[in-house]
Amino acid sequence: MKISTCKILGFALASVCLSSTLQAQTIQKYVSKNDKQLMEEYIRFLSIPNVSTDTVNIRKNAAFIQEMMERRGIKAELLTGTTAGVTPAVFGEIKTPGATRTIGFYAHYDGQPVNPKQWHAGLEPFKPVLISAPLESGGKIMGPYKSGDAVNPDWRISGRGAADDKAGVMAILNAYEALVKTGQRMKVNIKFLFEGEEEIGSIHLDEIFKKNKAKLQADSWIIIDGPRHVSGRKTIVYGVRGDVNVGLTVYGAKRPLHSGNYGNWAPNPALKLVHLLASMKDDKGQVLIKGFYDDVTPLTDTEKKALAQIPNQDELLKKELGVHTPENQERSLLESIMLPTLNINGAQSANVGPLASNVIPTKAEAVLDLRLVKGNDYKKQVDKVIAHIKSQGYHVVAAEPTEEERSKYPNLIKIEVEHGYNAQRTPMDLPISKSIQAAVQSTTKEPLVLFPSMGGSLPLYLFEEILETKVITVPIVNYDNNQHAENENVKIRYLWEGIETIAAIMLMDRSA
Amino acid sequence: MKISTCKILGFALASVCLSSTLQAQTIQKYVSKNDKQLMEEYIRFLSIPNVSTDTVNIRKNAAFIQEMMERRGIKAELLTGTTAGVTPAVFGEIKTPGATRTIGFYAHYDGQPVNPKQWHAGLEPFKPVLISAPLESGGKIMGPYKSGDAVNPDWRISGRGAADDKAGVMAILNAYEALVKTGQRMKVNIKFLFEGEEEIGSIHLDEIFKKNKAKLQADSWIIIDGPRHVSGRKTIVYGVRGDVNVGLTVYGAKRPLHSGNYGNWAPNPALKLVHLLASMKDDKGQVLIKGFYDDVTPLTDTEKKALAQIPNQDELLKKELGVHTPENQERSLLESIMLPTLNINGAQSANVGPLASNVIPTKAEAVLDLRLVKGNDYKKQVDKVIAHIKSQGYHVVAAEPTEEERSKYPNLIKIEVEHGYNAQRTPMDLPISKSIQAAVQSTTKEPLVLFPSMGGSLPLYLFEEILETKVITVPIVNYDNNQHAENENVKIRYLWEGIETIAAIMLMDRSA
Repeated sequence: MKISTCKILGFALASVCLSSTLQAQTIQKYVSKNDKQLMEEYIRFLSIPNVSTDTVNIRKNAAFIQEMMERRGIKAELLTGTTAGVTPAVFGEIKTPGATRTIGFYAHYDGQPVNPKQWHAGLEPFKPVLISAPLESGGKIMGPYKSGDAVNPDWRISGRGAADDKAGVMAILNAYEALVKTGQRMKVNIKFLFEGEEEIGSIHLDEIFKKNKAKLQADSWIIIDGPRHVSGRKTIVYGVRGDVNVGLTVYGAKRPLHSGNYGNWAPNPALKLVHLLASMKDDKGQVLIKGFYDDVTPLTDTEKKALAQIPNQDELLKKELGVHTPENQERSLLESIMLPTLNINGAQSANVGPLASNVIPTKAEAVLDLRLVKGNDYKKQVDKVIAHIKSQGYHVVAAEPTEEERSKYPNLIKIEVEHGYNAQRTPMDLPISKSIQAAVQSTTKEPLVLFPSMGGSLPLYLFEEILETKVITVPIVNYDNNQHAENENVKIRYLWEGIETIAAIMLMDRSA
Repeated sequence: MKISTCKILGFALASVCLSSTLQAQTIQKYVSKNDKQLMEEYIRFLSIPNVSTDTVNIRKNAAFIQEMMERRGIKAELLTGTTAGVTPAVFGEIKTPGATRTIGFYAHYDGQPVNPKQWHAGLEPFKPVLISAPLESGGKIMGPYKSGDAVNPDWRISGRGAADDKAGVMAILNAYEALVKTGQRMKVNIKFLFEGEEEIGSIHLDEIFKKNKAKLQADSWIIIDGPRHVSGRKTIVYGVRGDVNVGLTVYGAKRPLHSGNYGNWAPNPALKLVHLLASMKDDKGQVLIKGFYDDVTPLTDTEKKALAQIPNQDELLKKELGVHTPENQERSLLESIMLPTLNINGAQSANVGPLASNVIPTKAEAVLDLRLVKGNDYKKQVDKVIAHIKSQGYHVVAAEPTEEERSKYPNLIKIEVEHGYNAQRTPMDLPISKSIQAAVQSTTKEPLVLFPSMGGSLPLYLFEEILETKVITVPIVNYDNNQHAENENVKIRYLWEGIETIAAIMLMDRSA
């Protein structure tokens, strides 16, 4: 078994492989023995609401992480930037005598906004409960985890942040603790950084990096975030997409109008918006905005090869997600991820359901998500969208339209561009890239899935640009985790395996 | 003055005209003297929540109306149909010795749904307050009306139902009381009917009519609902449009997906919906559904003439509503009202604003409002919409799609057709049509606005089909009342003038 695992690696790392596998087993035993305590602490962590903008609760999360770190003998410190009063990042560091290299581990403790009404009956964002499987696939709610209960690793924990990304925080700190408690000796210095503003675009991470540059110096930073490949195989990601959100508000009459008295005459902003959105992207999924797919940096040969080796799970995914025909059906999901996107995150005009009434709405809103790949500049990408909107006859306003603007322009739109950032990609054939690959491979018999870039976004360009370091992402959670949405969950087995993966990386002796 | 008023009528009614004008002045004085009591009672009425589906509160409204009637010496009775437990209509009747003719007065006491969050700060649907003018036009909140306060008729009362259509109930009952208190002698029998399910399509009015046909017999029924013409002139409406709502739900993947991990690949139901809606109606406002404008009964010459005489207020409206270019700009608003419509009442997919997150939504919903004119059959009109949706490649499902449906069809839609009804139109040259016209004209120096049909809808075809009677609508409230929407309001002067108008109709001696 061990030999076949190492063969899969495809290059000569047999000795590392054998010893690491032993280490992996040690960690596995440790986790298995301590699973009840690990669960208890994690459930307490998930019970603290962590929506990024909930500044009171977000600090409770930071305090909880500080306690977690100090219980493990890691001196914790809150790092801030130059802007006063913003959510701090939690930092810690472990110096290894004689080590000349340093590896940092990053995760984020904030979560996406929640609309509790959209969660399944019996699930609440901040009251974690166990579920036997995803509820959409017939899973059952097994109730809250009670202290001392046996832990079924095939069950899941439901709650905001359970997967994205408190899982990263818990796995990093428990991997370190497991190494200490099992008496294994690290060969590198280790740094920890837990951010609290990732889900709002890491808007102060640049400040934190600039102000604490020396403290955050490392040969490389490992990002623990995002899901493992849909096949369940362990995964390494060498890049992330950039991201920027664009809010659109199209205006109708100044006041809501009775649809009988004014319908057919007063402009309906929902009708305007559907025409505008339909003009941006065809019904096959191709973006129609001029130059939208320009600027994309072509893949290297290594990246192309890695991409070709990733199992294509599209048919499985289609079945599991209930999708008949994907967008851009001539491209696989993997190919799609290497391109920029335009997604409608949400849209609303007046009300639907029981609150609907016979009105012509005053406005119609949509929020777009633009994902960016290497080569894209987020500001330029947004400019293409704005140019398209103008080409459709819209006048862009900065706020609710004034009387004068209303009298002057037939079509008015407010465009709100949120803070965005560009994509990042670390070459896959750097020594550090290969070392991480070997370490992760040592924990599993299955071949790894190596992504030149993942679909999701993190502002990892900051690591490269400000900290002048390399950055590689090692996702640990199950792919079907409902990340960013209602009923978010993490499969317990993936948490345990995440601890093993991270412990293996911490034991690496080659970090650059 | 009196003579010129009567000249405007264009036919020989001079004697009626002179005496009626005197009567109108008597009522005016009565209202002016009793305005504080009228306000107090109306504010109490508006404070009772009246959303049609709020079955507990809706009955409190019915009880309040019963008390109002009994305070005025009208024996009140709750009428129901054959379905158990539905909201009753409140009925009453006054027999006039020697009268051979009967006129009924109808209004409804239920209101459209409310979303209090959408109301202006300081306004609440069921805590009526006074405002100096519409808040959109710089009006100020003057606070609640306090017992004994002087009444400024240029102010408005804000609250759900203030205009639509508790105003009808209060004006009818106070018109009757004013006649009694000022000792004026009616020549006809009077019936009162106040419905509590109008805003949900009068779904049991047919049952109520069938079960109480004898009781509800009248030579004609006068409907007090809807707004006066935008010019402010008193208005008579000889027809109403029919109406039917159609709810659409388009489906994406079974669970919400991370827009980075699945964007560009997993179908986005919001994108599907915008393409579907855009295919139904072009960006100029023309409905593109096959045969949509067929079946329309052409206007008679009298109707065409009446329409031509209505002042075209489009330029004024455009300015007041902040509209640059109306839909179908080659048609006036008046012409538009004589055609069927397709309006997007509301649309939603996932969330916008602070709740927005980077997801691919699981579904996208829209609610359509189809207004119908004479000649349209509402079921046939809905069938045209459904045929169009199918022609766009959709498979129609009855509920959340099953696994099998998901695997079989690329595009799935749930279509929910609500109870609808057809339009109604009373010929404008019938004797009763002309009598009402004379009565209303007697209360004002301004020429009337006579609509062959109004834009709004009421199930008035039931009066014709079941009660076999004629039906004419006399709207009394200000046009800018935010009917059906947030910040609904009624201008107090319009309530007082409504009482005068109805009193004049009650004094008519020719009812058919």
